[in-house]
Amino acid sequence: TKGDVSGGFGGLYPFGDSYLVAGTDGVGTKLKLAFLLDKHDTIGVDLVAMSVNDIITVGALPMFFLDYFATSKLDVDMAESVIAGIVDGCRQSSCTLLGGETAEMPGFYAEGEYDLSGFAVGSVKQDALVDGKRAVAGDVVVGLRSSGVHSNGYSLARRVVESSDRFDYGDALPGDDQGRSVGEALLCPTRIYVPAARAALGKYDIKAMAHITGGGFYENFPRCLPDGLGARFDASLWSKPAIFSFLQDNGRIADAEMFRTFNMGVGYMMVVDGAVARQMESDGYFGEHDAVVVGEIVATDAKGEARVEVEFSTQ
Amino acid sequence: TKGDVSGGFGGLYPFGDSYLVAGTDGVGTKLKLAFLLDKHDTIGVDLVAMSVNDIITVGALPMFFLDYFATSKLDVDMAESVIAGIVDGCRQSSCTLLGGETAEMPGFYAEGEYDLSGFAVGSVKQDALVDGKRAVAGDVVVGLRSSGVHSNGYSLARRVVESSDRFDYGDALPGDDQGRSVGEALLCPTRIYVPAARAALGKYDIKAMAHITGGGFYENFPRCLPDGLGARFDASLWSKPAIFSFLQDNGRIADAEMFRTFNMGVGYMMVVDGAVARQMESDGYFGEHDAVVVGEIVATDAKGEARVEVEFSTQ
Repeated sequence: TKGDVSGGFGGLYPFGDSYLVAGTDGVGTKLKLAFLLDKHDTIGVDLVAMSVNDIITVGALPMFFLDYFATSKLDVDMAESVIAGIVDGCRQSSCTLLGGETAEMPGFYAEGEYDLSGFAVGSVKQDALVDGKRAVAGDVVVGLRSSGVHSNGYSLARRVVESSDRFDYGDALPGDDQGRSVGEALLCPTRIYVPAARAALGKYDIKAMAHITGGGFYENFPRCLPDGLGARFDASLWSKPAIFSFLQDNGRIADAEMFRTFNMGVGYMMVVDGAVARQMESDGYFGEHDAVVVGEIVATDAKGEARVEVEFSTQ
Repeated sequence: TKGDVSGGFGGLYPFGDSYLVAGTDGVGTKLKLAFLLDKHDTIGVDLVAMSVNDIITVGALPMFFLDYFATSKLDVDMAESVIAGIVDGCRQSSCTLLGGETAEMPGFYAEGEYDLSGFAVGSVKQDALVDGKRAVAGDVVVGLRSSGVHSNGYSLARRVVESSDRFDYGDALPGDDQGRSVGEALLCPTRIYVPAARAALGKYDIKAMAHITGGGFYENFPRCLPDGLGARFDASLWSKPAIFSFLQDNGRIADAEMFRTFNMGVGYMMVVDGAVARQMESDGYFGEHDAVVVGEIVATDAKGEARVEVEFSTQ
């Protein structure tokens, strides 16, 4: 996303005593995987997820979503599958599919291919804006587990699989607790964090939130914090989905590169006081929303990506 | 656009005493012309126009816009040209460019090509919604002149030029009052009707409005009227930009087909009482905003496209 005015993940527009918050995104080259596996019914979930997970970071709840679907020659069955995923994503986000555009553009896309973009609008009362300003060193970072690679890092992920002598998309993913193929695990739809955010906002004092997308931990997390603060993550605190070890091992990718590209099992983060984290845990929030403490806020003079330190797991 | 809930041109979402109104669109195959002429600085105006001209039809004024720009490999100069056009379109629409996404998707687009989609959000007080309900037979249709083909009908337009033995895009457009080539006239950016709508709303009792896009007069205009009403247009009431005669003559296209595909010189329409139309004219609104009476509302039992009758000009 470019042009953000909030310093965060969505654009803010003042309206009465609220901010309207808008975000737009596509699903990038994860689409190639949908084409390859000829499975189109979940990529719409990814599309909705990418936008709504951005706008909730400022404390907004999504109101409505619109999609743009472009292809050279409309394949009605395929389009209906895609739309079914979008409808599912909107349902998971408690938001209305308010409209959309299906564009038939002869000669623009290869046969059987298409592109998608999505656009979500939410709102937050101005006095409830989550802007990171009250974060302090010592605060705790509560991570929400991801469903896998989500919708970023697919150029790298595809390169790993396609250059592998040992694995193809149809092969069983080693160590996967759901017994999926590599392709199935890669195409697993992005988790939508709206229910978890909805359950936390208003009930707990959430100081900052981050959606971990392209750029992984290093690029995304600092955007939710004021200057002078950074974060130290301890990667031994949570287990990683099997797809990440698979990609790291087969691509011989360094730890830092993994955390710079992927969400590494934690797709969304909330910054709270330590006492609040303990309260969330004892209330059962962690179990219900698949949350785990992943790190802490630290004081730092560093800038940009250097504000984030990850202690890599030795497992 | 699909999924509209208003029966009109934009999706409505109730918010306080207002409706938020959202629209999304691309620019279709007009992009091919931008590629062909290697001119990218106005297609962004088209992008903004397509969405904002939709949302103003219910009386909403645009608040913000977001764009999605997708290409295989980012060409920074080209992208900057495109964005400059988007910025210009937002300025013409008095709306904020709140965000956007630039997606680099290797292998999706041919070299030098890209796709664009845009999203606009506006608002209207619920009691000021323009919904066509008060339109009656005898009302007048005030048309706002278009700047040319706008952003629809380019598959047909390109076919006409590319199958012509006599004309290519670089040739002078016969009869053009601005001395442009065929390609220049075709690439002329879509007129943004926000200033004209802004000047009319609140000041005059506007009963219904229509943005004439794909489907021309027949498909678009009935969407702004309740059942039982239609419109009779008299094509001799306004002059057509030279590009339309060029397309009709060289493509040997029937009148009805022209009015079913193109805006024919009138890209936006307002339904008002006859006395209001006379007041607008005597106030100088017609001169200032390039408006002209183009037809009248009639009672009809017909459905769909049959609700619209065009008396073709014999000129």
